[in-house]
Order: sequence, then structure tokens, then C-alpha cells
Amino acid sequence: MKTKIICLLALMAGGMGALAQTNSTSATGEPANDWKPATSNQQGKPYPQVNSEGRVRARVIAPQAQSVQLDLGGVKYPLTKGDDGAWIGVSKPQDEGFHYYQIIVDGAQVPDPNSLYFYGASRWGSGVEVPAQDQDFYAVKNVPHGDLRQTLYFSKNANAVLRCFVYTPPEYEKDSSKRYPVLYLQHGGGEDETGWGSQGHAGLIMDNLIADGKARPFIIVMANSYVPGADFGFNTNAAQSPLSRSIGGPGGRAYNPVAFAKVLLQDLIPYIDANYRTRADQPHRAMAGLSMGGMQTHSITLANLDTFSHIGIFSGGGISTNEITDLDAFKQKVKLVFTSYGSREVTGGRGMGANGKINAEALKQAGVNSVYFESLLTAHEWQSWRRSLHEFAPLLFQN
Amino acid sequence: MKTKIICLLALMAGGMGALAQTNSTSATGEPANDWKPATSNQQGKPYPQVNSEGRVRARVIAPQAQSVQLDLGGVKYPLTKGDDGAWIGVSKPQDEGFHYYQIIVDGAQVPDPNSLYFYGASRWGSGVEVPAQDQDFYAVKNVPHGDLRQTLYFSKNANAVLRCFVYTPPEYEKDSSKRYPVLYLQHGGGEDETGWGSQGHAGLIMDNLIADGKARPFIIVMANSYVPGADFGFNTNAAQSPLSRSIGGPGGRAYNPVAFAKVLLQDLIPYIDANYRTRADQPHRAMAGLSMGGMQTHSITLANLDTFSHIGIFSGGGISTNEITDLDAFKQKVKLVFTSYGSREVTGGRGMGANGKINAEALKQAGVNSVYFESLLTAHEWQSWRRSLHEFAPLLFQN
Repeated sequence: MKTKIICLLALMAGGMGALAQTNSTSATGEPANDWKPATSNQQGKPYPQVNSEGRVRARVIAPQAQSVQLDLGGVKYPLTKGDDGAWIGVSKPQDEGFHYYQIIVDGAQVPDPNSLYFYGASRWGSGVEVPAQDQDFYAVKNVPHGDLRQTLYFSKNANAVLRCFVYTPPEYEKDSSKRYPVLYLQHGGGEDETGWGSQGHAGLIMDNLIADGKARPFIIVMANSYVPGADFGFNTNAAQSPLSRSIGGPGGRAYNPVAFAKVLLQDLIPYIDANYRTRADQPHRAMAGLSMGGMQTHSITLANLDTFSHIGIFSGGGISTNEITDLDAFKQKVKLVFTSYGSREVTGGRGMGANGKINAEALKQAGVNSVYFESLLTAHEWQSWRRSLHEFAPLLFQN
Repeated sequence: MKTKIICLLALMAGGMGALAQTNSTSATGEPANDWKPATSNQQGKPYPQVNSEGRVRARVIAPQAQSVQLDLGGVKYPLTKGDDGAWIGVSKPQDEGFHYYQIIVDGAQVPDPNSLYFYGASRWGSGVEVPAQDQDFYAVKNVPHGDLRQTLYFSKNANAVLRCFVYTPPEYEKDSSKRYPVLYLQHGGGEDETGWGSQGHAGLIMDNLIADGKARPFIIVMANSYVPGADFGFNTNAAQSPLSRSIGGPGGRAYNPVAFAKVLLQDLIPYIDANYRTRADQPHRAMAGLSMGGMQTHSITLANLDTFSHIGIFSGGGISTNEITDLDAFKQKVKLVFTSYGSREVTGGRGMGANGKINAEALKQAGVNSVYFESLLTAHEWQSWRRSLHEFAPLLFQN
């Protein structure tokens, strides 16, 4: 089982760059001249810019440099120097949504000083937002907003104070007697507990769904899959914050599925149920995750069907009927299995996503409430996962 | 009044680098060889390092670069290239506490890819933590922790959804009938609403004080002084986040004291009182801030003594008895005036801090509950302000 997960992760890491490059390019080769500053820029910074084709135009001031590159989607684009000492260059069209990138100045791989910073690819670095047709579902609107809380909890298993984020719905503070279901929502490989609330826009997605009456209010808990001190698995050298850094002990963090399951089940869930107004039972507890987080969801929920009733696996495999030993019990306990992929992960009935779709269909045939979703023209990337949460949330806690 | 504030800010900006450089250097000139990775590094990154003298040793991989510098405390230190293509160099001793810095690669001013990132100097960039003798008061401990909440509220005055952070004390979720006093706590010039919760460690300072029984539990609200659309004042091109960026409207943010006062008094305080369990009256409302935030606190509280009862001004001037028109009314309404500076801001009875101390003493002579605090061997920097909050908080809401 561990070997299988490692292989899948390697495939995903290798496949990300390639998948992101299958977008069409314009016929003339000349970029459309409708550049706008990316919404992911730092305030007042005019670059990087994005055009209607989804190309990214970066600009970096480096008067004495010999070479400057934009490293985006697995491709290193050369920038050219202008008379003002600023280097500028344009990428191929990118998928709609969010992409990690970096700048290379004479061999130094550094964040772009113009962008905001996000945790992914096992480091804090630059990200760029390519406007999406459907971006309204995660837009900031004048609707009631929930809080996104940075929460510190003590983990007996890790023997450390760990950080998670907790989204509480807008109405949470209004009626102090009401209790809420909980979704445990995990990031992907090389990411951390900040991902869903930042580049994932989980809070905004929920605020908008709730304001539209499309989802029931529930709590979302976003933890870090990498447990300090648990480096007996394979080490991806991931995930950090000022807080967790100062208490995670020496050395790196590592992902170990057994260690994370223990932290989740024995430390985090009891902490959340003791400190928030939750409905602390199986019918009102869900788990979902993207990529590596989807694989965690798969293994942890299948082994703990008395703890979780709703399952979401985004770009992270699926549940096969072969894995279910007692189908009647499964159907009785599991109210939803949601499987999703970006369409670029499912190419011509092949690729990682193909099996997920086949498994989801087989589950449905077997009488499980199985829902399959495919994000149009996106790959193994955040736009697929934002859309997945947006489709998944309305299906939760209907009973 | 506006002119005065502008001049003070210019003085401060100019003075920061110089003040930070007055630390002693070792007799031999050879740095002590007891380097440790900074606690402000990204997980697993061995550089930058700090030694017992408070020197910072940076290392940047830049194989094809001609010149790499560490830009810290107003000084550009040259790094030298090793056989492995990595550049390395050492700074002069720095004050204890937190310092913003950047790396310059062949003229490109970029964040150090090894550090965590913080908002200050009007940009997201690198920060380095120099261990302090008294760092225990903001250490992460296994004590009950409050939540640090990212909160979105609609401002009628800005006609925008704005972001603030709200610290709720550890016990807040335990007794849903209890209500709490509120401290409004502002960042400095070129900083934003993230500062106090991140490099300021406000939450950890409060958690530890409350656990030790040294401060009463209260709520802290940290807002952004720069109001979008209010660029009719002087523009410092500051402050950003993914959320506020996407709704702040086009162009930069600007600091305008009148605009911020309106947002605070007419939009933010009513939102907080409506959405949190506050004690929504003058005796249970305080305001404090650092540097520019201290000057805001000065002008806003003096003009609104029926709204605030406790005043904290950190490295941002002080209240003169000349400014108080009705001393009896002032003494009756204002339960505390707290003034603080870093000792390096008060050199030989001169400097910015000297007036603050004189004013604080005069207030005390006049019968006001005036407290003056000086942070030993620190300048216009975060260690002074962490210590100021640590001294200020226990004095709040004693009646």
C-alpha cells in the first residue's frame, strides 16, 4: 500500500508540468495585447500580467544580470533585458486558475518580488492567478463571511503544538446554541494547512454557497499532513509556518500516513469536538482532500467508517468496489463518495483520472451514492480543486 | 497636524537603519562560531543562521551571478562565492528580535528563498529572527491557545470588503454567555493587518499572559490602516493580501488618518460589537498601535474619549498635557495612558523617545494613570513592540 502511494505521487509530480502545457496557443503566435496585472500580485505591483489567452508576462528589475528566466508550469521562459534594466518575457497560455512559479536570476531560484507568496512545491514562493470563466464562485462579495481561524492544538502523538485552520460559517457567532457538522479537508503533497484557505479560497467558496442557499453551514478543519517527528516515512521536506516551525522540533517534517491518521483521529478530532460547537458523530463528519490528501482520505475513511459518513477524493484516486468488504454496511454508513479530476488528467479515457471515473461508476452501479465530477480544461492544479469543493459542499450533510 | 505626522514618519523611516547599527561588535572581529538556523526560516532550510552575537549569516545559491548581497538593517553586506556556487556572508550584530531583509542578486532585489515572508517596508519579503534573552514570553507552549481569526467585513466608507484579524482568548468558546473587552491594535507604516499576529506574536503573548494569570482575557482586533480608495492623503503604497487585493479596487491603498478613523469608528467597531461577544462600552474598549499606529491611536482616542478608556502608544509619540482641554474629564474617562519606546530611540535624553518619556511623566504629575516603558537595547523595531504589548496588556481592563 505504501509503495503504491509513492508511485502515484511520483507520477503526479512528473505529470503536473506536462499536463499544464496542453493548452492551445494563438494562431499567429503574437500574444493578445490585453494585459492586466494578476490579482495575485502584491498591492500596487503592475507585474506579472495576464492576458485573455492566459499567458503570463513577468517583469523583473535586474540591471547587472546576464540571464533572467520565468519558471512556470515546468517550462523556463527566457526574459529579455530592456533599456531600463528590467527583464521582461511571456509564457505560453496557462490553464485558468492558480499556478506556482519562480524567477531565476543568473542561476538563483528566487520568488518574484512582485507576487504574493503561497506554500506549495515544498516551499513558500510565488503564485499567479489566471482569470477563470467561473471565478464568480470564489469572488469576494458583500455577503456574510465566516471566519478563517488559525488554531493551535497540542498533539500527544507528535508531542508538539500543531497548527490547523478552522473555517466557521457566517452564522456561527449568531446563535450560540447551534451545533455544526465538520469537514476535515486536506492539502496535497508539498503543500500545507494554509493551502485551502489561501490559494484554495475555501472560505470564500463556502461564504458564497451559503449566501446562495446552496450549501448547509458547516465547519471546515484544515490540518497539516506532515507530522513533525514522524520522519520514518518518505520525506518530502514540506510545510512550514512561523508557529509550527518554532515547535515542530529539529529537522524536517515528513509525511507518514499512519502518523497523520493518529494525529487526526486521536488528537485533532477530539480537540475540535471539545473546542467548537460541532455535531460530534459519524453522520455529521466528512473527510476530503486533494491529491495526496485524497489518498489520505481514501485510506483513513475506509479504515474508519464509524467516524466518517461523507468522503471526497479530488485528483487522488477513488474507491474501488473490491476494497469494500461488506457492501451493505458500507452503503448504510457512507452517505456520499465524491470523486473528481481535472479533465486534463483524464485524456482519451486514459491517465490517472480514468480509473477514478470507472471506480465511481462501479460504486454507483453497486448502489452507493457515488458522484463523479470533472473540471473542464484543467489539470492537477488548484482550479480543479476549487471547483471540486464547490461541487462537493452542497452534497454534504443532507440527512 | 497632518504635516507633523508626515515629518515624524520621514524621521522614523530614515532613522530605522541607523538605530539598528549601534550594537557592539566583537573585539577580534571574528564572528563567534555558534551558528544556528534562524527560527524564521522555512522548514528544513539551514540558512540564514544567527550566532550568539546576533550576527546573521546568509547563503544563496546563484552559480552564474557576479554579485550577491545581504541587505539588512540599512547595510548591504557583500557575500562571497564558494566552490559549490553558493554565496555566503555575515552581517554585523543585530538587535535581539525580528528584522526585515532582502537579497540582491546582480542588482535584483528579491526575497531570500530560505526565509518565511512577512509584510513590512511596504512589501512581502524576508524576515530574520535574532534570539532574545526574554523570548520565553512569546514562545509556543502547551497552554490553552486563543484563535487568530481572519475576518472579512464590509466598510460603507471604503465601499469594499476589508480584512482584519481578531484574536479571541482561549476560553472564548467555553462559556458562550461571557462577554469580553476589546483592544484595537494597529501596525506601523508600510505594514498591514498581518503584522501583529505574525512577526508581532500578539496571540502567543496573550496566550502566555493569560495562562500565567497576568492578564485578563480580552479580544484584540487588528485592522489595516491603509483604506482603499482613500488616496487623498500621502501614499505609502502599502499593505496587501489575496483577499483585500481582490476587492480593494484599482490602484494602491493610501494612508489617510481621517479615512481610517471613519472606517474604525463607523464600520469596524460596530461590526465587531455585532459579531463577537464584546462588552460594547467605553470602559471596555482600548486602542493602541506602534509608530504610525501610535500616532493614529493618539489622534483617534483624544478625539473620541467617550469611545476608548485605555490608550497605548508604542514608539509613536505621546500625549502632552497641552493637548488635554479638560483634565478632570480626561482623568475620569481615561483609565490608562501607556507610552513606550525602544531604548535606542532615547539616546542621551534625546531622540524621538525623549519627548514621549517627558510627556508621560508630565501626565503622571497631572494625576493621569500614565505608565512609561522602555525596551532595553532595542530600536524602532518589533522586539520593542512585542515587549510593549507584553507590558501593556496586564494593565488593561482592571476596573
